[in-house]
Amino acid sequence: MPSLSTGEGVWDWTFLFFQTMFAATAATIVSGAVAERIEFKSYLIYSVIVSAIVYPISGHWMWGSLAGEASQGWIEALGFHDFAGSTVVHSVGGWIALAGAIALGPRIGKYRHDGKANPIPGHSLVLGTLGVFLLWIGWFGFNPGSYTAGIGSIGRVAMTTNLAACAGTVAALATAWVIMGKPDLTMALNGSLAGLVAITAPCDLVTANAAIAIGLVAGVLVVLSVFALDKLHIDDPVGAVSVHCVNGVWGTLAVGLFAAPSSAGYGNELVGLFYGGGLKFLGVQMLGAGVTAVWAFGTGAAIFFTLKRLGILRVSEKTELKGLDITEHGQDAYASFQFFSNT
Amino acid sequence: MPSLSTGEGVWDWTFLFFQTMFAATAATIVSGAVAERIEFKSYLIYSVIVSAIVYPISGHWMWGSLAGEASQGWIEALGFHDFAGSTVVHSVGGWIALAGAIALGPRIGKYRHDGKANPIPGHSLVLGTLGVFLLWIGWFGFNPGSYTAGIGSIGRVAMTTNLAACAGTVAALATAWVIMGKPDLTMALNGSLAGLVAITAPCDLVTANAAIAIGLVAGVLVVLSVFALDKLHIDDPVGAVSVHCVNGVWGTLAVGLFAAPSSAGYGNELVGLFYGGGLKFLGVQMLGAGVTAVWAFGTGAAIFFTLKRLGILRVSEKTELKGLDITEHGQDAYASFQFFSNT
Amino acid sequence: MPSLSTGEGVWDWTFLFFQTMFAATAATIVSGAVAERIEFKSYLIYSVIVSAIVYPISGHWMWGSLAGEASQGWIEALGFHDFAGSTVVHSVGGWIALAGAIALGPRIGKYRHDGKANPIPGHSLVLGTLGVFLLWIGWFGFNPGSYTAGIGSIGRVAMTTNLAACAGTVAALATAWVIMGKPDLTMALNGSLAGLVAITAPCDLVTANAAIAIGLVAGVLVVLSVFALDKLHIDDPVGAVSVHCVNGVWGTLAVGLFAAPSSAGYGNELVGLFYGGGLKFLGVQMLGAGVTAVWAFGTGAAIFFTLKRLGILRVSEKTELKGLDITEHGQDAYASFQFFSNT
Repeated sequence: MPSLSTGEGVWDWTFLFFQTMFAATAATIVSGAVAERIEFKSYLIYSVIVSAIVYPISGHWMWGSLAGEASQGWIEALGFHDFAGSTVVHSVGGWIALAGAIALGPRIGKYRHDGKANPIPGHSLVLGTLGVFLLWIGWFGFNPGSYTAGIGSIGRVAMTTNLAACAGTVAALATAWVIMGKPDLTMALNGSLAGLVAITAPCDLVTANAAIAIGLVAGVLVVLSVFALDKLHIDDPVGAVSVHCVNGVWGTLAVGLFAAPSSAGYGNELVGLFYGGGLKFLGVQMLGAGVTAVWAFGTGAAIFFTLKRLGILRVSEKTELKGLDITEHGQDAYASFQFFSNT
Repeated sequence: MPSLSTGEGVWDWTFLFFQTMFAATAATIVSGAVAERIEFKSYLIYSVIVSAIVYPISGHWMWGSLAGEASQGWIEALGFHDFAGSTVVHSVGGWIALAGAIALGPRIGKYRHDGKANPIPGHSLVLGTLGVFLLWIGWFGFNPGSYTAGIGSIGRVAMTTNLAACAGTVAALATAWVIMGKPDLTMALNGSLAGLVAITAPCDLVTANAAIAIGLVAGVLVVLSVFALDKLHIDDPVGAVSVHCVNGVWGTLAVGLFAAPSSAGYGNELVGLFYGGGLKFLGVQMLGAGVTAVWAFGTGAAIFFTLKRLGILRVSEKTELKGLDITEHGQDAYASFQFFSNT
Repeated sequence: MPSLSTGEGVWDWTFLFFQTMFAATAATIVSGAVAERIEFKSYLIYSVIVSAIVYPISGHWMWGSLAGEASQGWIEALGFHDFAGSTVVHSVGGWIALAGAIALGPRIGKYRHDGKANPIPGHSLVLGTLGVFLLWIGWFGFNPGSYTAGIGSIGRVAMTTNLAACAGTVAALATAWVIMGKPDLTMALNGSLAGLVAITAPCDLVTANAAIAIGLVAGVLVVLSVFALDKLHIDDPVGAVSVHCVNGVWGTLAVGLFAAPSSAGYGNELVGLFYGGGLKFLGVQMLGAGVTAVWAFGTGAAIFFTLKRLGILRVSEKTELKGLDITEHGQDAYASFQFFSNT
């Protein structure tokens, strides 16, 4: 995000509202990786810790100056650039998701005796697709919205964001087609999200060509990562780690590879590809991504392994097989029709 | 809503469009309380009457000056404050919903011989949750949007709106957990809506602390109200009365309890809690809520008991048991897959 | 769309982003008409051709000046008016959809030996309704958004757009009720879309009364068209041709019938009905609609009959009966719950 003038009370509330959504996003990313086996109590506990402590601290290291020049964070002081949060939001959530998936272990029946993964399909691909569409649209609030002002460059950020999302979809579809022999819908959907996560850091600095390149790489990475995690028997039901952690890191490094200098023309001539800011800039991007990895995975592991030791992290086998909607919440998520008679 | 300058033709259409949505909202609130047993004809009839006659008349009493200073309503002339419609929109819909639920009587099988309520769960909690999320997001058009201009205070209203929604969710979840022994999802969702309805009147005048307090009370109220209505054997399938009527009244009174004076600082210092405007102001808020109750419940009762006398209010027992999608509309809402052969 | 000043690089990207959505809309319209029997490969092929070649060429004929005065298209030079795309977007998609439905032929079992149509209902009317609601809301980005600037007239376009959608819903509901004996939900939903498509061309030039009249006609047309296509054994699973092609043409002609002169007062006095711009103007509108029909249906037929000759247009009978989600994509769209054991 660009630096913002502060000091006006009214603006502070606008900014707090905006950042609330970012903090909630970081915490929500984790939910997909721990789904179908975490205790609801532990879900509440980690959500509060992530959004109230983990995200704000590392967020300050990279975006501190947004709260006033005097509070610049130490990583941003080195020249680190993450426009709307590939690292600050998505990697943070993704690394904690990885810690959660490891601490919980796989769902019952996910991995067979021969080591291969059983597919545990979702209830409705229609609803899954709708969810990705809503996220895609929401991203135009996330990325262009991070200017927090209706300036002209918003159109360019909308374009780079959309191009990367499309490229990610196409690349993941093609990669899955080659590997699995079928154009897998869930892989294509994760490819859309992968492209969106990856373009989030560099969306304001790269050309249209670079946005496509970033999205293509993201779409390939997300599919390979899903298979790699399954090889490692790390069960991430929705692919949160592959989407947000892997591509959050990729997007952050992509800033160093593709960032175009102002002189390259941010207007009509967005046709170059590689520009970057030299090895030192790339190193700073790596440093930011690396420090965040240590911080987020470390605090995530601390949270989830503490909950595990306390014996409240994972539901019982009986509860898991019956379904958490019924056992934890007392309601059937997809109730059949019921008829009663009071006559 | 703040007073708006009028006289420019173009603005009149913008305002008419905005108010059309408010009128439609008031009418739509009713649908949840009369669901699964009302005749489609009667549904059409009350929808037209509520949006074309009931809402505009009471709306004018409280928001008349929006159509030009010369047409100020009598309740607003007393100093009544309802920023975006806790009373004007939500209570009006909620009181009519109560009249409809009473006139129709409970669904077949809802209440047992021993007086206890049978749960009749919805088809999909996923879709129910999605619906609440869409409403939550839409509320940022409703409350901040009621400034009808992109002024700075919009950020503050977005913040108070969101805080009350979050507080309502947490309070309803906790209350249901204590009473029912499980963290009930539908109660939590109604808690979100309860907080949103309650903050709608005071969202522009209260501190962040007060917004949280208003939401917490709303979340408790909505759960208690759901149980109270079941005790009275008033069958409100989605909790429309508990959400919109009860919390519409609560939000209107909350203006009198929490409204902060301008001197308290609308900017950085939104940290106080109780301010209010004195007993007289609280009395005016009570008067507005009370007059609306009489008007909306009265006209609602007149509509629904007239339709009942005409014998077109409620479907037959056979129709109700078969499902209104099939009998009234000729289509199965959740069709199974069908195969035909034309060969 | 109105003519826009160009030359600023930043604006070009905003406009490209906006037009990307329009091109994608034209291509997406086709998907509904070819659903449940087209090969995924052919789906990808026609989507690329329609959005990259067919839409941009005819779009330039009617909206070329948006890319700079020097590139004015030949149809717009005659005085053709299509504000947000009844012809440019919807008819183009609708004519190609018609070509696709004809080339593919009906789904297995759609038409009986006696020639009558079997209903093949969708999986969930709730999701269908949600889809129409999302389209309806999105249309406020489409029509008012086509000013591409927050000018005052946006409110008026929002109002005419909404009035036509409401009128279309009511007219389709009533027409279906008369013909089918039941208020059919899917017909009502197609009526909403029909009204929206029809008002898209004239939304900036007509009075509120005219918007209602345009929507009422659209709602009747869409129902009659659905029945007419079934008589012709043209199987259009979602009614894409009836919504987008038929009403795209109707909306374009409606500009000639209802366009109000500026002197009629675009502000408070939008109460007249028929104004129009004379027979010559109506003729230009007819010409634009007709040329587009030839272009879009012609290219659509070329695409789909070529794919048919190549033998990759339609899936095998076995594939179609099993379902394309499983056979083409390897995933069940509505998976049942599955349990495995790894112990």
